[in-house]
Amino acid sequence: MGRDDLNEGGEFQSPALERLVRGLSRLPGLGRKSATRVALHLVGRENPAEELVAAIASARENVTHCSRCGAITEPDPCRICTSERRDPGQLCVVATPVDVLPFEKAGFFRGRYFVLGGLLSPLDGVRADDLPFGRLTQRIDEDGVTELIIALDASVEGETTALYIQRLCEERELRLTRLATGIPVGGALAYTDEVTLQRAFQFRRSF
Amino acid sequence: MGRDDLNEGGEFQSPALERLVRGLSRLPGLGRKSATRVALHLVGRENPAEELVAAIASARENVTHCSRCGAITEPDPCRICTSERRDPGQLCVVATPVDVLPFEKAGFFRGRYFVLGGLLSPLDGVRADDLPFGRLTQRIDEDGVTELIIALDASVEGETTALYIQRLCEERELRLTRLATGIPVGGALAYTDEVTLQRAFQFRRSF
Repeated sequence: MGRDDLNEGGEFQSPALERLVRGLSRLPGLGRKSATRVALHLVGRENPAEELVAAIASARENVTHCSRCGAITEPDPCRICTSERRDPGQLCVVATPVDVLPFEKAGFFRGRYFVLGGLLSPLDGVRADDLPFGRLTQRIDEDGVTELIIALDASVEGETTALYIQRLCEERELRLTRLATGIPVGGALAYTDEVTLQRAFQFRRSF
Repeated sequence: MGRDDLNEGGEFQSPALERLVRGLSRLPGLGRKSATRVALHLVGRENPAEELVAAIASARENVTHCSRCGAITEPDPCRICTSERRDPGQLCVVATPVDVLPFEKAGFFRGRYFVLGGLLSPLDGVRADDLPFGRLTQRIDEDGVTELIIALDASVEGETTALYIQRLCEERELRLTRLATGIPVGGALAYTDEVTLQRAFQFRRSF
């Protein structure tokens, strides 16, 4: 077939648009179809793509990770680490910067955070040397942390990491706690998975 | 609460990142959660956002609509309109530029297209004056179109538009056809909706 046959496998007759669709489908969570919708939106005359492009550039320029806790921030150290209204004695260990958001949204936690930036995963090649455990113990010692709250995923990786932190803290005088496992508020017993149900039973409390 | 309380409703401690998340969640199909994932990906050090930004700029600069058929293209008129291997006598009317893609992917259609850019919708205020029906009849006359294939959605708007085109063509000597309605290939009868089933029955063919 000659090139003017144009049956290019259902591609647009525009290399520039195809390049944009391919670039967008490399983003997490976007397939070819949703990338096409976004691409057509972005080339639309009435949509100010400049605004989005400027937002990307500004975010890349300004966003950084707090050198103390690893949270996403613009001032470094972040305002949670420097706020005098936050209790330095309570330190909450989370896996990723996004995990800080639900805590701050709920607003009940008055301590500070430490973002590991990942979880131990021998299968994926993430070993203790790859995570900032040195900075964690340093922070525990410097800030006089009295309670370390482990708020990691209830996955194999989360459990492995929690166990590792537990061993790190064995020599230290501090209370080590973790988030409760159980039936979610409003969750229906009938639809609870077996593992959660077993944990909820195992950690049952007295009235 | 003072500003160092920082319980900002679960937002990132970065106005630039929040602006990016908000900009991304305005894109079609992206909610706050997926926008957050994309934003974090875009600010990641290891991801070349420059490439995507360049692709957006290039697409906005180069992508245009074919002045003859309305398809998305870079050369104007588009290569389907100018290709001598495409039959000018068969004209396929579609609603949007994206509708051209499945035809070109399948590759069986040897005619050309006419993109309406929308469908008649009195409720949404889209009237005949808003769609390029004048350019459509002009093209039918100039190209000596012998068959007009209507490939519009099987929605109320699609039917209304098809009816309008039918009336436009009443005075003209051409065959007016539309895509068949029926059970999709491989579709299970048991899971076919009633309307499709009724149409498939109504348009049943003899062996």
